[in-house]
Amino acid sequence: MTPEEFRRHGRQVIDWIADYLAGIESHPVMSQVKPGEIRRALPASAPERGEPFESVLSDLGQILLPGITHWQHPGFFAYFPSNASGPALLGDLLAGGLGVQGMLWVTSPACTELETVVVDWLAELIGLPERFRTDAAGGGVIQDSASSACLVALLAALHRASGGRVAAEGVDRRYTLYVTSQTHSSLEKAARIAGLGAAGVRVVDADPDTLAMDPSHLRELLAADEAAGAVPAMVCATVGTTSTTAVDPVPAIGAVCRERGVWLHVDAAYAGVAAICPELRWLNDGVAEYADSYATNPHKWLLTNFDCGVLWTADRGPLLGALSILPEYLRNPATSTGSVVDYRDWQVPLGRRFRALKLWSVIRWYGAEGLRAHIRKGVGLAAELAAWIAADPGFELHEQHPLGLVCLRPLWPGLDDPAEADRATLGLMELLNASGSMYLTHTRIAGRVVLRLAVGAAATERRHVEQAWEQIRWEHAALSSTLP
Amino acid sequence: MTPEEFRRHGRQVIDWIADYLAGIESHPVMSQVKPGEIRRALPASAPERGEPFESVLSDLGQILLPGITHWQHPGFFAYFPSNASGPALLGDLLAGGLGVQGMLWVTSPACTELETVVVDWLAELIGLPERFRTDAAGGGVIQDSASSACLVALLAALHRASGGRVAAEGVDRRYTLYVTSQTHSSLEKAARIAGLGAAGVRVVDADPDTLAMDPSHLRELLAADEAAGAVPAMVCATVGTTSTTAVDPVPAIGAVCRERGVWLHVDAAYAGVAAICPELRWLNDGVAEYADSYATNPHKWLLTNFDCGVLWTADRGPLLGALSILPEYLRNPATSTGSVVDYRDWQVPLGRRFRALKLWSVIRWYGAEGLRAHIRKGVGLAAELAAWIAADPGFELHEQHPLGLVCLRPLWPGLDDPAEADRATLGLMELLNASGSMYLTHTRIAGRVVLRLAVGAAATERRHVEQAWEQIRWEHAALSSTLP
Repeated sequence: MTPEEFRRHGRQVIDWIADYLAGIESHPVMSQVKPGEIRRALPASAPERGEPFESVLSDLGQILLPGITHWQHPGFFAYFPSNASGPALLGDLLAGGLGVQGMLWVTSPACTELETVVVDWLAELIGLPERFRTDAAGGGVIQDSASSACLVALLAALHRASGGRVAAEGVDRRYTLYVTSQTHSSLEKAARIAGLGAAGVRVVDADPDTLAMDPSHLRELLAADEAAGAVPAMVCATVGTTSTTAVDPVPAIGAVCRERGVWLHVDAAYAGVAAICPELRWLNDGVAEYADSYATNPHKWLLTNFDCGVLWTADRGPLLGALSILPEYLRNPATSTGSVVDYRDWQVPLGRRFRALKLWSVIRWYGAEGLRAHIRKGVGLAAELAAWIAADPGFELHEQHPLGLVCLRPLWPGLDDPAEADRATLGLMELLNASGSMYLTHTRIAGRVVLRLAVGAAATERRHVEQAWEQIRWEHAALSSTLP
Repeated sequence: MTPEEFRRHGRQVIDWIADYLAGIESHPVMSQVKPGEIRRALPASAPERGEPFESVLSDLGQILLPGITHWQHPGFFAYFPSNASGPALLGDLLAGGLGVQGMLWVTSPACTELETVVVDWLAELIGLPERFRTDAAGGGVIQDSASSACLVALLAALHRASGGRVAAEGVDRRYTLYVTSQTHSSLEKAARIAGLGAAGVRVVDADPDTLAMDPSHLRELLAADEAAGAVPAMVCATVGTTSTTAVDPVPAIGAVCRERGVWLHVDAAYAGVAAICPELRWLNDGVAEYADSYATNPHKWLLTNFDCGVLWTADRGPLLGALSILPEYLRNPATSTGSVVDYRDWQVPLGRRFRALKLWSVIRWYGAEGLRAHIRKGVGLAAELAAWIAADPGFELHEQHPLGLVCLRPLWPGLDDPAEADRATLGLMELLNASGSMYLTHTRIAGRVVLRLAVGAAATERRHVEQAWEQIRWEHAALSSTLP
């Protein structure tokens, strides 16, 4: 495709996206296709001869769009938001157009240096300490996801806990990782990937009401494991769990970690960016004092489309020790002098896109005040919704909803068996999701099914939340009337 | 940013990229900035108030562009190509605009099903066997890189070799991985990440001339390790090594792997896509019979901008066994029935972009014949360059150059000490890279420094290779005349 053809088709695509976003409410939020339906509509083999770009756009609209679940739809409440925004899309497009690899400083210095600048900007915006900056002993880096960030943190923690033995000799004893039942599944996945196995994952008690980690039980487990010959490698505290946005008590957990010399990783994948608002800065309490690493995802709630997760560490030494290998064809004077950052040593893959461009573009377009307004809109709408639920005798509200996620349990007075009531709740959810006007998911609290409604899509306004609540009430009432 | 603002700024960005690509030869290939120069030109803190998008574009041109090394420049020969193309950029842009997460089938069915379709298309185009298709027991998946692909392959191999013990209990004995000195460093990195340690990596001899793995030495090592109580987990054969495009003898290696029941991963990150040309189909000899997994990167030489690596496996069972975890909030009817693919279980991260769109867009725009023409252009230019080098008494050609990479050693008749000659070669390279008209890297063959010239950027035509060769000869002659 020549530059002139790119100019022509590029405008078509820009218009396609602008039209899509302007008309997004005309689509059902959740795709209603059956497994295999999209695949069967596509040819089984690649075309031998090239086709006009218009055919791609036409098939996108005709064949693929019915199979899309619209994450940018204002009625998307199913998972934490995956905000896209104009400046992020355009920053990402520029990164693609430049088409550079940022694996080493030397392979495109601006790719590395802009990344250092924007992760420092973000660290300052959410109140992370100076020691997390590259100018100190730490630094931040953009990862594809919080899953990868927690794996990298675990590898660094293992490196420190083992004195470098894991990188050299492998896992040669029982290393342990501490989570709760509410911690994201990516932590167990990281433990399995890193060779600790599911058995290396220790589950600390969570408070039955707040679902937050119990620091005294953590202390007990650490002592027992050490006494049994295990080497505790890392504790993961979560600020804003996926299931219910529970907030682990980082200051108390951090104090325990310090006592025992264990690496503290703070997983604030969803919630961390909200700390750009001074009134939510408490989310990061204890991080400055105690955290060895910290991760949050601008690609969730900060208007920067996926992928853009940021991991910071207070000490890049163990991270580089765990992940750095330098073959001959990557040697270069800048790396040899140690005067530059080579971000390939801060992540699993070697190659890396120029992802800093989109985060830079977002922060500049919205400014700190624009980003704060976006977070506040989500928090405010969620608070209103929670108040409506609390006032309705047909529903039970999960009291802890510090941010954009609200969990609620419809009550079914006729159903005494909790399992039956849970099935009714899931049935209500499927009915709502099939309606096309909203998309919810569920989780369990104290064994009972609850519905999760996560407010935070860029397009979601008060009227969408109002409509969703009205529809939930209406469908709940209708379904209740059919039950014994 | 509203849809209408996006439309306006989107056109600016499309024009910016079209102009950039049309005028790319006006830039020095390799950035000439010093460490810290870009960073110092940028503000230390984020803006409090939003700025116009024009400021972003202006700073991109003024501040960042001097720090860019231009991977799409026709004089970029330093690393394997990182092809961008119009249809890839636009497919990626559409993926961003839709802004969906493809972690589960249910979170956007078209994202998963189009991926299955295009990886099946590509498997057919490069001659991979039926058993690598999703309709059989295997399947393909888009990863961010070959590094991640080899880590995932290793985790699946460990799962099979350990009968699931590694996922459950962790690395509880010595598991081993087999490579050569020429294997990509990401394999050692994968072994370290997976808890095998550098000590779990066994280095099989490579033939001193072809630099290809010696299958009989592999057989010896496997037997010795097993006798010593180790569990061989995976052999990595490389088709087209990074250093010199050496091709390991996959049929002979595969036969050894089958004898010993060891997982064979074929890393064809760079070379695999070239097998779309029937005359290069031999690159995949032995894969159909013996490979358990196979990876190649459309984001290198197949006009699909980073990131887009594809991993196939003949048996998805161990892969899912190693990586699948299902928390409550991800449960859904489609997953529960087992009737769909959930690609989150095929990779390290949970989240995933709709990367299939760009590969689909590329294959449709160019068609199989257009992609073959692109590969043939690179191979043809490299062959011409190699012939010029072979005919020049001032240089020594590395005889094996099956694809786009040519390795050459300038001769320095006055310098008898090999170390001095190597320094002169590196000096020549730095001179050439500082000229702005080309970018080369180096490696070592039999201990001696050689220059690597990788042809394959989409913009590279015969005249660029001719000019580069003329300049290399000229600078070499000039430098030679200053030596004793």
